[in-house]
Amino acid sequence: MTKLRTAQAAKKITKTAEDIHAKILKSKSPTMITPIRSLINIKYQPKIGYFEMLGKKKQRALTVRTVRTFAQALKMMSLAKELIDTDDMATKREAYYVSKNWGKAGFSEQSESDTIMDDIEAMFAVNREQLRFTPEEKGGDIAGRLIVIDTDSLGKKIKIDCTRFGSGAYSIPTDVENLRFQSQAKFVLAIETAGMFQRLVKYDYWKKMKCILISMGGVPTRACRRFIRRLTDQLKIPVYAFVDGDPYGYFNIYRTLKVGSGRAAHLNKFFCVPSTRFLGVTPQDIITYKLPTHPLKEVDIKRAKDALRNDPFVKHHKPWQKAINQMLEMGVRVEQQAFAKHGLDFVVNKYLPSKLKNPSKFLP
Amino acid sequence: MTKLRTAQAAKKITKTAEDIHAKILKSKSPTMITPIRSLINIKYQPKIGYFEMLGKKKQRALTVRTVRTFAQALKMMSLAKELIDTDDMATKREAYYVSKNWGKAGFSEQSESDTIMDDIEAMFAVNREQLRFTPEEKGGDIAGRLIVIDTDSLGKKIKIDCTRFGSGAYSIPTDVENLRFQSQAKFVLAIETAGMFQRLVKYDYWKKMKCILISMGGVPTRACRRFIRRLTDQLKIPVYAFVDGDPYGYFNIYRTLKVGSGRAAHLNKFFCVPSTRFLGVTPQDIITYKLPTHPLKEVDIKRAKDALRNDPFVKHHKPWQKAINQMLEMGVRVEQQAFAKHGLDFVVNKYLPSKLKNPSKFLP
Repeated sequence: MTKLRTAQAAKKITKTAEDIHAKILKSKSPTMITPIRSLINIKYQPKIGYFEMLGKKKQRALTVRTVRTFAQALKMMSLAKELIDTDDMATKREAYYVSKNWGKAGFSEQSESDTIMDDIEAMFAVNREQLRFTPEEKGGDIAGRLIVIDTDSLGKKIKIDCTRFGSGAYSIPTDVENLRFQSQAKFVLAIETAGMFQRLVKYDYWKKMKCILISMGGVPTRACRRFIRRLTDQLKIPVYAFVDGDPYGYFNIYRTLKVGSGRAAHLNKFFCVPSTRFLGVTPQDIITYKLPTHPLKEVDIKRAKDALRNDPFVKHHKPWQKAINQMLEMGVRVEQQAFAKHGLDFVVNKYLPSKLKNPSKFLP
Repeated sequence: MTKLRTAQAAKKITKTAEDIHAKILKSKSPTMITPIRSLINIKYQPKIGYFEMLGKKKQRALTVRTVRTFAQALKMMSLAKELIDTDDMATKREAYYVSKNWGKAGFSEQSESDTIMDDIEAMFAVNREQLRFTPEEKGGDIAGRLIVIDTDSLGKKIKIDCTRFGSGAYSIPTDVENLRFQSQAKFVLAIETAGMFQRLVKYDYWKKMKCILISMGGVPTRACRRFIRRLTDQLKIPVYAFVDGDPYGYFNIYRTLKVGSGRAAHLNKFFCVPSTRFLGVTPQDIITYKLPTHPLKEVDIKRAKDALRNDPFVKHHKPWQKAINQMLEMGVRVEQQAFAKHGLDFVVNKYLPSKLKNPSKFLP
């Protein structure tokens, strides 16, 4: 399945290269067509559950003015093909340094090579991991009822049992395209802070609740989002997000995980996890559980008002508008560790069980 | 051994509390004595290999003016004792929220509770993990020839084999005090970036070189530093640091890992890893391996000049002064992924083997 996807990406590269080659032989100017990657080309699609592109495209023809970027795009495609063929990989930064051997097609700044890479991934409608370009950053730790199936360097299957890590965890690799999963878990709990994750691990929460715990460590990385997406595609279990009750938690973390981001709409179909629901912490939880809070900062208020006005996801979901307005009226934010006021075990023995009686009441 | 350390911490708390109690019964003003935690109270100790405190102390007496912080320190000590007795733990942030139930002794800001916690850890000459206060952040991934021995929640021994993670890794928990280790590895390679770590994992570097790979992900967290320290204390193998060739890599990452930091001198004896040596990337490597570079930024130059003038570690080591002056003269910095210019496998097949022929030539 995965190998198939990568092989398809290789085929697409070959096809494009052949077309360009044929045009040149006929003395015609070759072109490359890529979707426009900006907000004017996206729409929130409630049915499929994420931001999607509208189909506006830009065409890059080979001219005197574009010859350098045209050559760079071709070299980058060639590098991807080579990585696929040799089962190797390169980070964005490594790809930039590899170009230092391309003579005049070398990039002067990594931002240039990043842009070309984004164009190519959009052009082929794949995520760049399928072209064997891997993220710079790891991110995301797992504990609980999950067996990850990976291969070692000789191609032998390895089963990694995430119940067997004690106080530690399984750290998600930067490239998750080749992983497969086995699990009887009932749900995934995606947690913002490492501190809360460690508490739930300490209290064996995954054992009692038959679930998979994932520490996102703030905004989830590409690898973490893709991992959760592939996991839930295969296991068909819901994801519940447990993050701080502030605009950063609501939008930068939760909304990005669930529907993706506007800036990278060509990728959302690979990275977003539409089955995610918001467990907490909600503004209502502050009242229900008498939680200690902090005043909203200027930036929080601005972010919340912007979301009410402009965010297609928020504009589509009335319960979110209500929650955000409630937060603005209360003028406070809350951290997920605030439950410690009622004792360190309160979150495990009271808050989570009480919430999980009614997942249907979670914010969408 | 570890249980013993924790039990000793509990005893120290009880002893201090009893002394204070006795003084109060005799109608004398009780006091708490803590070392001064600032640069005026530290010195670089080449023989033991880290910054150490000089022994200046401050005394906190119970007066009308200090009654609130005095009470807070006592409550915090009491919380630590409770955590030890119940084998629980609390993050700094949780400890702050727990205080919301202490009535007038509650903290208004987390910075207040952090300060009291730092005082207590200095007062008892332990690291706060021994008082069961755990860091907020995870950090540090492991792959290679290491078996970590942990216990599950029922106290049963768990062996975690870090050769069995495929493309993933073992994620270090926030509290490493109870871990033990088994290994035949010859050295530890501590790597700055997740991208480079992933490359070495991909190429099975740990298998060929019989070593342990650690991804620090930038400046190593407390948990990561303490892990490396405990690991090398037990295994007696050297640590080689492989980081970017810039002042951030040299001082913020390498020097912190090796000798600790001036600001937290009371902790260095627990966290620094004096056996660490600097594999690269050095300014000389830029010339030897014809590496692509970036110009030094203003902040790099300032940081380097400051280090030459004021950093006791740099002032003690001539080879470091030479390297920093060489960097300033060349006016450039280098990233550890720059080797990709010569091919993605260059770092594994050429650079590291050539360097590792002569670890005695590594910068100290």
